[in-house]
Amino acid sequence: MTCAAAVQPTSFIRIPFDHWVLAAGDRFEDAAQCALPGDGVVPMRLHRAMRYAVLDGGKRVRPLLVYAAGEITHAEGEPLDRAALAVEFVHAYSLVHDDMPCMDNDVLRRGKPTVHIEFDEATAMLAGDALQAEAFKVIADGGLPASQTAALMRELAHASSTAGMCGGQAIDLDAVGTTPGIDQLERMHRMKTGALLKAAVLMGALSGHPAALTEATREALARYGEAVGLAFQVVDDLLDVEASTAELGKTAGKDAEHSKPTYVSLLGVQATRAWSLRLRAQALEAIDGLGPSAARLRELADFIVCRKS
Amino acid sequence: MTCAAAVQPTSFIRIPFDHWVLAAGDRFEDAAQCALPGDGVVPMRLHRAMRYAVLDGGKRVRPLLVYAAGEITHAEGEPLDRAALAVEFVHAYSLVHDDMPCMDNDVLRRGKPTVHIEFDEATAMLAGDALQAEAFKVIADGGLPASQTAALMRELAHASSTAGMCGGQAIDLDAVGTTPGIDQLERMHRMKTGALLKAAVLMGALSGHPAALTEATREALARYGEAVGLAFQVVDDLLDVEASTAELGKTAGKDAEHSKPTYVSLLGVQATRAWSLRLRAQALEAIDGLGPSAARLRELADFIVCRKS
Repeated sequence: MTCAAAVQPTSFIRIPFDHWVLAAGDRFEDAAQCALPGDGVVPMRLHRAMRYAVLDGGKRVRPLLVYAAGEITHAEGEPLDRAALAVEFVHAYSLVHDDMPCMDNDVLRRGKPTVHIEFDEATAMLAGDALQAEAFKVIADGGLPASQTAALMRELAHASSTAGMCGGQAIDLDAVGTTPGIDQLERMHRMKTGALLKAAVLMGALSGHPAALTEATREALARYGEAVGLAFQVVDDLLDVEASTAELGKTAGKDAEHSKPTYVSLLGVQATRAWSLRLRAQALEAIDGLGPSAARLRELADFIVCRKS
Repeated sequence: MTCAAAVQPTSFIRIPFDHWVLAAGDRFEDAAQCALPGDGVVPMRLHRAMRYAVLDGGKRVRPLLVYAAGEITHAEGEPLDRAALAVEFVHAYSLVHDDMPCMDNDVLRRGKPTVHIEFDEATAMLAGDALQAEAFKVIADGGLPASQTAALMRELAHASSTAGMCGGQAIDLDAVGTTPGIDQLERMHRMKTGALLKAAVLMGALSGHPAALTEATREALARYGEAVGLAFQVVDDLLDVEASTAELGKTAGKDAEHSKPTYVSLLGVQATRAWSLRLRAQALEAIDGLGPSAARLRELADFIVCRKS
């Protein structure tokens, strides 16, 4: 972690949003390059698979949320990098395992063969397992005061648990072939995708000055995180029917193919689009009182709802 | 975690070792019953699989090491329970994933069908993933000072990472069908099994009074943990050829069947047995200066080397 980029996406200097997205993405990529074990280090195949799963791909929505939320508490670069790495490692591990034959059995992710196709199933399973451990390690090895380190790890552990991401995955699995109500679908998505996106927001804020994170601010950020977390999934469902495989970099139309219940299958395209916009409004309302330091978070709410892939 | 057993295996009261093993095992079982999400809580199937993977089985060597090491720093019951749960959850997740068809493809574990046989592969994968998250959660939610919480999580994350358990698994995978030297085999086992056993010892000690854990004591415990960690695996290799499937509660003779290199295949039975005794001596020598509070650790070194299953 000595090769952190010179770019400081956490700075208040007002560069345009799309430039900031690129700069933050580059910064994250550099941090991930440094933080992941080298592919020349034994066990090389495992390290290659982990790097393959994380590097050079994805929209990096979670890291962007970390960097943006860090502005609220004037967080510094390296602690933010570590929080961003931690959430993205958990996200990446969940994709690797989710793509495996016993789950979604998908062969394409981010425009590349999935990890179990490029390597093998055993390596994919281990790479996922190791990325989860690496997520906690990258926080544990950061130089923040213990109270912040412990709070960050707690946030990550809860978001990854059966009350969060893993629980949502299991509910999703149980729901295949059934027709859940909209409430059940929402609960599943709040856990499966929403919990980690919300954790990204809170972990960004937890990486800065504790005094700047009042209880009210924390609650505002939690509400923002919940709204954008759910909006992200609602838009994902829309894109699965509207975008092409080339645009998505993963197999399009697979929800319908697998008879997976989605917002679109339950509500139709128009109502789903309308709902994504209401969630965006909820997210903006939640952080209305946070002033100019929440500018990036506001832009990110738009980015998440209006994205095309 | 409100239903902790009245039994205090951490007490200095000298009950015979075999009684202590039973009492500590019962205490751990009660703690696990309370700490794991209930199987009536959604997602029920996932929670049932997690409980199936952890409860009512295994020798609980890692929890025993935690409780025994806690005597060194006069640790209290609940923090020790949490440290014991964390290492055992990580151990249990690794077994669940290791038994799956893409890894060892085993159908029997602790005398019961493996998780993917009793449930299904997707549930087994998710249960393993969730148990790893739960391991960090049970530490994060403990009431210890943040400096201890952070230190415990750091120890656990390193032991579980590619520098520890996951890395050892990957080296093991790469070694199937090859003939590694004894040094390579040792390195693999120090990572695959040894790292978590050593972490159990250190985490037990880290759960008590920080002032009681001097750097010298910590180093002594690390050396003890390394020696018993390796001894455990050396004895495992011996048992795989000497014990029956019924005694082991898992498929016996599978190392030879899978052409897995072991200490026995490289050194023969007699030299392997002799080496396990040398490692026991190393373990005892490491904690020689720790006085009566290390009595249980000494007994555990014998227990690990002389076990029959």
